[in-house]
Amino acid sequence: MQPKVIILAAGKAERFWPLSDKALFPFLGKSLIEHQIERTRKAGFREVIVVCNRDNLPIIKNFKIKTVLQKGEGQAAAILSAKNFIQGPLLIVNANDLFDPSLFKKVLLVGKGKETEVCLVGYQTTNYFPGGYLVVNKKNEVKKIVEKPSQGKEPSDLVRIVVDFFRQGEKLVNYLQQEILYEKALAEMIKNGEVVKAVSYQKEWGFLKYPWDTLGMMDFFLRTFKKKKIGRNVKISKTAVILGLVMIEDGVKIFENAKIVGPAYIGQGTIIGNNTLIRESMIGRNCVVGFSTEITRSYLGDDCWLHSNYLGDSVLDKNVSLGAGAVLANLRLDEGNIYSCVKGEKIHTRRTKLGVIVGQNVRIGVNTSMMPGIKIGENSFIGAGVVLDKDLGEGKFCGFKKKSLTIRRNRSRIKRGEREEFKKELTVLR
Amino acid sequence: MQPKVIILAAGKAERFWPLSDKALFPFLGKSLIEHQIERTRKAGFREVIVVCNRDNLPIIKNFKIKTVLQKGEGQAAAILSAKNFIQGPLLIVNANDLFDPSLFKKVLLVGKGKETEVCLVGYQTTNYFPGGYLVVNKKNEVKKIVEKPSQGKEPSDLVRIVVDFFRQGEKLVNYLQQEILYEKALAEMIKNGEVVKAVSYQKEWGFLKYPWDTLGMMDFFLRTFKKKKIGRNVKISKTAVILGLVMIEDGVKIFENAKIVGPAYIGQGTIIGNNTLIRESMIGRNCVVGFSTEITRSYLGDDCWLHSNYLGDSVLDKNVSLGAGAVLANLRLDEGNIYSCVKGEKIHTRRTKLGVIVGQNVRIGVNTSMMPGIKIGENSFIGAGVVLDKDLGEGKFCGFKKKSLTIRRNRSRIKRGEREEFKKELTVLR
Amino acid sequence: MQPKVIILAAGKAERFWPLSDKALFPFLGKSLIEHQIERTRKAGFREVIVVCNRDNLPIIKNFKIKTVLQKGEGQAAAILSAKNFIQGPLLIVNANDLFDPSLFKKVLLVGKGKETEVCLVGYQTTNYFPGGYLVVNKKNEVKKIVEKPSQGKEPSDLVRIVVDFFRQGEKLVNYLQQEILYEKALAEMIKNGEVVKAVSYQKEWGFLKYPWDTLGMMDFFLRTFKKKKIGRNVKISKTAVILGLVMIEDGVKIFENAKIVGPAYIGQGTIIGNNTLIRESMIGRNCVVGFSTEITRSYLGDDCWLHSNYLGDSVLDKNVSLGAGAVLANLRLDEGNIYSCVKGEKIHTRRTKLGVIVGQNVRIGVNTSMMPGIKIGENSFIGAGVVLDKDLGEGKFCGFKKKSLTIRRNRSRIKRGEREEFKKELTVLR
Repeated sequence: MQPKVIILAAGKAERFWPLSDKALFPFLGKSLIEHQIERTRKAGFREVIVVCNRDNLPIIKNFKIKTVLQKGEGQAAAILSAKNFIQGPLLIVNANDLFDPSLFKKVLLVGKGKETEVCLVGYQTTNYFPGGYLVVNKKNEVKKIVEKPSQGKEPSDLVRIVVDFFRQGEKLVNYLQQEILYEKALAEMIKNGEVVKAVSYQKEWGFLKYPWDTLGMMDFFLRTFKKKKIGRNVKISKTAVILGLVMIEDGVKIFENAKIVGPAYIGQGTIIGNNTLIRESMIGRNCVVGFSTEITRSYLGDDCWLHSNYLGDSVLDKNVSLGAGAVLANLRLDEGNIYSCVKGEKIHTRRTKLGVIVGQNVRIGVNTSMMPGIKIGENSFIGAGVVLDKDLGEGKFCGFKKKSLTIRRNRSRIKRGEREEFKKELTVLR
Repeated sequence: MQPKVIILAAGKAERFWPLSDKALFPFLGKSLIEHQIERTRKAGFREVIVVCNRDNLPIIKNFKIKTVLQKGEGQAAAILSAKNFIQGPLLIVNANDLFDPSLFKKVLLVGKGKETEVCLVGYQTTNYFPGGYLVVNKKNEVKKIVEKPSQGKEPSDLVRIVVDFFRQGEKLVNYLQQEILYEKALAEMIKNGEVVKAVSYQKEWGFLKYPWDTLGMMDFFLRTFKKKKIGRNVKISKTAVILGLVMIEDGVKIFENAKIVGPAYIGQGTIIGNNTLIRESMIGRNCVVGFSTEITRSYLGDDCWLHSNYLGDSVLDKNVSLGAGAVLANLRLDEGNIYSCVKGEKIHTRRTKLGVIVGQNVRIGVNTSMMPGIKIGENSFIGAGVVLDKDLGEGKFCGFKKKSLTIRRNRSRIKRGEREEFKKELTVLR
Repeated sequence: MQPKVIILAAGKAERFWPLSDKALFPFLGKSLIEHQIERTRKAGFREVIVVCNRDNLPIIKNFKIKTVLQKGEGQAAAILSAKNFIQGPLLIVNANDLFDPSLFKKVLLVGKGKETEVCLVGYQTTNYFPGGYLVVNKKNEVKKIVEKPSQGKEPSDLVRIVVDFFRQGEKLVNYLQQEILYEKALAEMIKNGEVVKAVSYQKEWGFLKYPWDTLGMMDFFLRTFKKKKIGRNVKISKTAVILGLVMIEDGVKIFENAKIVGPAYIGQGTIIGNNTLIRESMIGRNCVVGFSTEITRSYLGDDCWLHSNYLGDSVLDKNVSLGAGAVLANLRLDEGNIYSCVKGEKIHTRRTKLGVIVGQNVRIGVNTSMMPGIKIGENSFIGAGVVLDKDLGEGKFCGFKKKSLTIRRNRSRIKRGEREEFKKELTVLR
């Protein structure tokens, strides 16, 4: 019997600030939840429900999928919100965890094992990840789940991904109704001797925890490209250069001497201007990447507008504009690790190259300099020439104090004739 | 009998600040007054006089035209300065009002009407214009001229353009000698029952009132282009792209990967550097538009020098230089209407895109940011990095206060080896 | 009998700050001392010794040349340090004075004259040079050496270059052992009636006194190019343009639409990015000249890293990085002469175009503006947006004070729909 699937999409995303709803965050022209729904369908699951929050429910409803509004907080509450849906085998996944489709098969295979009551997935890695870790015995049974150990104290090499299988969904419901936390319910099941198998997974994993994880998720999608794809009604100048695995959607225009280096994605109706350079990036719909802009390993939402900018390892939510000369820097002067402040806590981003995370509807003035790792809240404006080196809240204006300038009589005079001399230096055109 | 023509070119141009003399302002390599003289000649007028001021008289004299120095202030004084010239039918035009040549014919035709004593022109528009309005009866007779109504209180849809025909110039002189103001003389004529006919006009009108009107006048000229024209001794790189109606004067050099999008004009001897983008703009003589500059809908006077700049909807008088990275911004962060201060009054420019107006001999430093709608007086210098958001007078220096910087011991050390890693990220050239 | 040669390479280089050791300064991939050694060998000299200082001795030793550590200070001490080497005819040259090989022949020819005891070289020029001047009689005998006359008080048109020939090196040693200064020893020889001949020289002279002389030395080398040379394993995009005498070393990659205008040198393994423009410059090994950078008449040491920069008439020592939008300006707003401060003294650089001199391991932030003629000490960092108009010492951090910004509630709202209008303005791609 095919398990029913619950997709958790209601989670609050405070740590994802300043970006908008994770489940609705678009990649390759579709929201993450659409991708997840599509992936479960492709894997053969027929009965799928999405647990939504008040904000994304009206939108997700349109995706021809069963939905339910989450009541209460936390994962347990989320699952219990879908109580009426649960019957028999059950698979629980997050909207914002993507993985290779083979993982579904692997989990179901282990789930089919007679003795298996529960099956959890551990992502095998020697890199530290600030999440739960599975402690497993030789029979591949989970004996313990350790939540967020500090770095260096990881009890295993298996980071928990929520792709949770239960032979009997009803049993999970029973546990959850006695426990407030999902993790505690799982611990209780283990304690009570239920057989909780572990599946270890080593392929690609796309997740969204912190806003800069958008870049990792972008990579996850870019790495799925198998061949170059050019949509309908696309105009590409003869002098533009398109290298590698690039997906260009309908109606895109690419002007003279633009260069796009794959893997890269250009959304529908977007204009890539003259003399631009885009590498390993994802550009949303109806953007204008204007004259002489360089974009490296960055994500642009829909309706962004740039010209003469440099963006490295940065994330722009939708409808963000940058004035000419604005730079989103991605490297500290000392080339050290980049930290970012999340909910008052200084987080080690584990990146030496990280640019700027910009919320929707932000306007960034000409010749501004945004320092690596900072975040800018939605609807904020940043005045010309500003150097911003810390986070800026939502709906703020940040500008120069007028007092920083001095105006006096100009005591200098220009010597005539010099310019003619300078012009002679200009190379003759051959 | 062909009317004699008076061209008024002596008007003070305080509202045109910081730009120089309107009559001498060059378009397509010729001053406006030369264009006006040429246009009257082409229309068949043989007797033309230009009323000049002390400053432009010596220059206009060279244009093989009758001139007279204006004595006293105002239009009445201007016309009376040419009193000795006036005899029989008379046409009065401004140096800085250009229109389709057909308007001359239209006025003369109405002027020939037996009963017509005076004929005035109204530009038919539903857009507000801060000038005089003609109130006309059903017989197309002007019954009143309303000077500068406030917006929303326009008494008609006919904005007065000075293309004034008088059957008997001497009669006008008589009226003027009794009145101080030209408008009052016209009002008196109407009051006395002289037949003052109106001609309504709907084609192109180029005028210079405020300095940003230079952009409208530029458009007036650019729209006259009928075909592409390339002068003698022009060198254009094979990789440069020239689109649309573009006029390129003698001796121009256009370097690799430059793109010029018409309608556009490139003045004699000018150099258009590598990787530049020029759209719908007018570039004067002997300019250098250097490496990686973008110019959009802007006017550059002679001898301007740029490189790595962005200019949008801006006007540079002659001999203006911009350091690398200087940006003349043309859009507010809130994308709202742009205001400009003229003679102490905040003027609604009726533009959401307007850049900067720069007087002659100005030097603008590297990485500066000039805010939309500001004006910079001639002979002023602006120091590197300055963000200027209000008008700057003539002969000023505006720079950063030194105090804004802090210098301390550098506690950081660069980790060796990182750079080699970064270099690997660079795309292999294929 | 062939003279023995002493190359003086131990000189302290305080006036050369912030650049590193003159003798080891690389040009065309080799240090200056290597060039000088090679030149003496090509001229046929077999016995050559280099007088080194403690720092450069270990490196120069590797160049398969006799070396000696200088004991004591000054040129006399330097020569005496090689006392054991001196025997018979002797030629003394500086490591950092390069000239046409014909000068060696000229000096030896005069040196062969029977009566000649000493032969000195004067560089014939009417331009002032802050060095020693030879006063010569009609028989071409040096009668006096005037050290550093002030400008306008030059006693002749012969500036002394150290290419000093002595028929008997031992005699020089005797004089030096009695005098503390080399110049005094020479004066004493003249006074005692020794025949000191002068050779006048008019061809190219490359010297390093002040750090900006690096640019003159660079020109000296660039002017030696006879033909274009492309190394092995070089990849040049079909759309790149290489003009004139350019030397490109092994393993260089030149990306799309780059333009290199000779004479120019690109060091081994260097990457020249898209849309770059390099004119009359020298780029070291393993540099990255990134996207949309313009370099004019500048010297880059090894391992420099740029993108979206402008550099004019500037010198970067090795391992210098510039953030996007950083500009090294080379022209004052008043287009006047550029001064620089050396050891507390304001020095007239005799240049109207001079950029910035940057010591090794310096990091210059995004959108910074470095003013003409300033110098930056090694291991210093300059924060984003900084406008620096005076020298910065070694190991310093220079940044903006935070107080210069103001943050308040954003009272503006973006009008929707405007952007779509703007997009229509964008030129259709044809």
